[in-house]
This record gives sequence, C-alpha cells and structure tokens, in this order.
Amino acid sequence: MAVYTDVDNDALAAFLAEYNIGEVLSFKGIAEGVENSNFLLETTRGRFILTLFEKRVAEADLPFFIGLMDHLALGGLSCPTPIHARDGKALRRLAGRPAVIVSFLTGVSPRKPNVAQCASVGAALAGLHAAGAGFGIRRDNALSLAGWRRLVNDCAADADKVRPGLAETIAGELAYLEARWPRDLPRGVIHADLFTDNVFFVGDDVSGLIDFYFACNDFYAYDLAICLNAWCFEPDGAFNATKAMALSRGYTGKRPLSRAEAAAMPLFCRGSALRFLLTRLYDWLNQVPGALVRPKDPVEYLNKLRFHTGAQGPETYGITID
Amino acid sequence: MAVYTDVDNDALAAFLAEYNIGEVLSFKGIAEGVENSNFLLETTRGRFILTLFEKRVAEADLPFFIGLMDHLALGGLSCPTPIHARDGKALRRLAGRPAVIVSFLTGVSPRKPNVAQCASVGAALAGLHAAGAGFGIRRDNALSLAGWRRLVNDCAADADKVRPGLAETIAGELAYLEARWPRDLPRGVIHADLFTDNVFFVGDDVSGLIDFYFACNDFYAYDLAICLNAWCFEPDGAFNATKAMALSRGYTGKRPLSRAEAAAMPLFCRGSALRFLLTRLYDWLNQVPGALVRPKDPVEYLNKLRFHTGAQGPETYGITID
Repeated sequence: MAVYTDVDNDALAAFLAEYNIGEVLSFKGIAEGVENSNFLLETTRGRFILTLFEKRVAEADLPFFIGLMDHLALGGLSCPTPIHARDGKALRRLAGRPAVIVSFLTGVSPRKPNVAQCASVGAALAGLHAAGAGFGIRRDNALSLAGWRRLVNDCAADADKVRPGLAETIAGELAYLEARWPRDLPRGVIHADLFTDNVFFVGDDVSGLIDFYFACNDFYAYDLAICLNAWCFEPDGAFNATKAMALSRGYTGKRPLSRAEAAAMPLFCRGSALRFLLTRLYDWLNQVPGALVRPKDPVEYLNKLRFHTGAQGPETYGITID
Repeated sequence: MAVYTDVDNDALAAFLAEYNIGEVLSFKGIAEGVENSNFLLETTRGRFILTLFEKRVAEADLPFFIGLMDHLALGGLSCPTPIHARDGKALRRLAGRPAVIVSFLTGVSPRKPNVAQCASVGAALAGLHAAGAGFGIRRDNALSLAGWRRLVNDCAADADKVRPGLAETIAGELAYLEARWPRDLPRGVIHADLFTDNVFFVGDDVSGLIDFYFACNDFYAYDLAICLNAWCFEPDGAFNATKAMALSRGYTGKRPLSRAEAAAMPLFCRGSALRFLLTRLYDWLNQVPGALVRPKDPVEYLNKLRFHTGAQGPETYGITID
C-alpha cells in the first residue's frame, strides 16, 4: 500500500483537460492497492480514483483490465467504471506511466469480516462471474500451474530458510496438484484476488468490488476457493466453518456448482493456498531494499495449505453434493 | 508518507459512536504526513481526516497541537479544525494510539509552486503568526540550537560517509550560529515545517495550512526563513530570487519585519537550512530496515546552506531594510 509516483499539478491539470470531468478540488495519494499508485481525485464534477500503473503490471494486459471494468459496470456490477476522455480513450499516460481514471465507490473494507459479510461476498462473486460472461478479450491465468512451477523452481534453493522442509512441501504439493488439476470445468472471467481489501461494504452489504488487476480466465470454482482462503480463516489461523458455509451458500444461491465443481473444491482450496504461498514466498525471498511495501508472511498460507490437505471433502467448505 | 496502523471497522464504529458526526460511508488511508497515520473519513455528515499519532510524536505535546488548531481555526485561519466528541474532548484513543478527527480541507499541494503561490504562502504565514497570538500553551522548539547540537554530536562519527568533510562543515556552521543566534526578536507560535505539502491551494490562493505537529514557540522571522528554504529553490538547486521576493513581500505586506528581524534573515536562512540538513542526515544514517518511508536526501539542504553562507544580506531574499 503505497504511492510510488509523484504527480505534478501542472501535469495533472493538462491530463484532466483531456476529460469532461471539471476542475481539481482535491488530490490525495491513497494507501490502496499494492501494485499501483492510486489517488483520490475530487473535481467540480465529482469524485474519482486516478491509477498510475507501475512496472509490475504488464502494459499489454491493460486493455483487458480496463475493458473488463467497462464490461462489468455495463453488466450492472458495482465496480470502478473507467472514465473515457473526450477522444473516447480510457487508457492514457501521466507522469510517464499508463493511467486511468475510474469512478469512486462508497463503502469500507472489513478488516475482520463477519458471517453476513461472507455471505454477501459469496453472492457478489457469483454476480461478478455472471457479469463477466460475453467479455470479448481473453487473458490466461499466469498464476496457475505453469506459473507455480516457475515459482517453485525460483524459490527451491532458499525456501528452507523460511521454514525447514518448505522446499520439499511445495514441490510435493505441486506434483500432487499437477497430477489431478481439472481440465474441463466451467470457466470464464474470474477476479483471482478477491481479498477483503478489494471489497467495499455499507453495513453487511457489498457496495463494490475493486482491483481487477489479477483478473483472468480460469475456473469459476477456483475463484470461490481463493475467497474461502481469504475470508474464512481467523487471525489465529483457525478455519471458521460458519463463515465458509455462509460464503459458499451466498455463491451457490446465485450460481449453483455442478457435481464436478463441488468435488473439485478441496483441490482448488489447496491450489489457491499454494498460489499465495508461492507468490508471498517469492516476494519474501526477493525483498528489494528500500521498498515501500512490507512483504506478507508466506507461512500464513503454508498453514492454510496444511488445513486443506486434511480436509475431508467439499462439506468442509459448506458445500454439499446432491 | 504512509499508513502505519490498521484500523478495524468495529473499532472505528465504536470510536465514532462517541461523536456526533454520523455513520461511516468511506474510510481510506492516505499518503499524507510522514509521522502519523492519516485516513480520509467520509460519513453521512461530511468529510474528515482521522489522524493516529505514531510513536515519533510525544503524547505530552498533543494538547498543544490540538489546542493550537482549535485556537487558529477560531482566529479565522483556514486549518484543520479538531472535532470534539460528545464529552467535549477532541483527543481520544483508537487502535492503541492517541487519535483526533479534524475537518477536511479542499485544495491541492503544489509540487512546483509558482511565483503567485509563493506570494500567497507568505501572506498565509503572516496570517498564521497573527492568529497564533494569545494561545495559552507554550512549546519550546526542540529543533533549535540545543537540538542541533545534539544532532551534530549524534551524526559526527558517520557524517563523512554521506559527503567527505560534512562533519567539519556542520560543526563549523553550528559554532557560527551559536555565537550569533538572536535572543530577543519578536516571537510566538510558528509552524516550523511549512513545506509545500503542508499548504493547500485552489488556483494560486492558499485554501488551508495543515500538519501543525512541529509547531512551537520561536522567532517569527525564523519561520519565514524555513519557508524561503522550502519554497524558493528550484529542483536543480538554483535559488529563485523572484519567488523569494514574492514570498517575503507576501509576508511583510501583512506583518512588516523590524530592522533587527530583517537583518537576521540571512542567519535564519542558514539556521533553518542546518536544521533540515541535520534531521535528514540523522534519518539517513539511522535508516530502519523495512521502514515505509524513504529518507530524504540531506545533501539538498547542504547545498541550500552553502547558498546562504554566500548571501550578501537580507536583499538576497527580497527583504529591504529601510
């Protein structure tokens, strides 16, 4: 959470002159988003978020991300709506970086979501999957099996510095998943990073989903597994089965899972736990001196992975197979 | 610029229940202020800034800072106004830290101030000095001569790692200033840190002054010297005499300097350059691994100090002695 790039006022004024959104009243860097610089922009016409894309986001992916937000907003999802400039373009440049202005969303992210909020986010995830249908651009998930294999190789030499035996654990887990990963379950656009800080609530109701910069095409049920990992473990590491049941039922109430999807949930929970374990491990082992973001603890996801390894079946996650 | 402390939603709701400011609609950490955590808080009643005081601010000083903002706002200065809770207190606790809610100010901070903005900030500084009169609490400037002596001692062993000869330069400069520092010029409440990021503008007019957490009692003209250092050097290190004249005349148009104050300006510019050189040098030499704030370059203020050492007199700063 940081602002990486300073924006000069003259440059901002020149940039905004391309839009029909009025004059600047206030402009503040905000601590939201790990990969980009975000600013809260208030103009005489309303409030907006200005995002500058820093180098971790591939420019070639930006038309997918921005087109997706356009598509989802048109489909009725409450998400940031890209603001198009006078020439029709939403993706522009500012301070030497790709830049986009999107609509401001009201709401707050829960640090400790309650059961009702877990139910709401499950339903919102199903709404996102429905709204993504028909989107014309495709983006493969770079952080699925092939990406994990690369991360496992990159981390192999140093993983045991974090926890003795970790290299062997992740190599074994990846081999297990590679042998069993499904090929033909329902798929489409997924968020792929729907952590609590990417969901806004007013009370217990979801008021908006943000940060689509990991969105991609993959299995819908895998996205649900990411949410179970992100929303249903307590700070002490305990898995809260009540929250899991609420989240799963919130989802399946709007988009029922097929038998095959339900059966795959334990595997998807293991896979998504490995995915975040690996990216956190990589960031932990490759810390940049002077970086503005503290790396997250990979061991949190090692513990989640261990929980899923022992799960009995989809019932563990509040999912029943009829 | 960072957010050091996470605020849980339940804790925030309980905290706000002590106030008459409505329900939360939005809550975002903002990249403003180096010493504290700041959040933009939108409620059903309006917009506010919530500040959590981190450990670098001494709790004993908080009644001065908060009382001062109350006093200045009552005196007509556009500055954050502390919001008092139902029990009348403005200083409370949240997330284990002292906390205050203040009013939100519109406006943007210039990265590259223009001449008209320099004139405006000079006038605003004089307005601050006038509005501070009669404030009943006193806070000595911990970063005047005695504080510099301490910093010079702390940095002496390692200063030459930053620039060969730096230890000797700062020791000599401090001795020069100690021998000549005035004792009886007009004094009162000064801001002591009025850098560009602490001033908001709408166009070229000052819309508000913020961040009073270095405010203290000291010479008024010394505060003007801090501004000359902060506002009148270009990014390439050149001193912009046009901006200095505009800033000084903006100030003296509202609060004329005495002959003795005018004569002391070159000394005050040297002193304030040394002050920021020393604190930046200290932070540079004492970097905390994993810190969220990048230390600022001390050499910028070494170069400013060198400029002032060669100044001919107050005329260098656009100040004439009648």
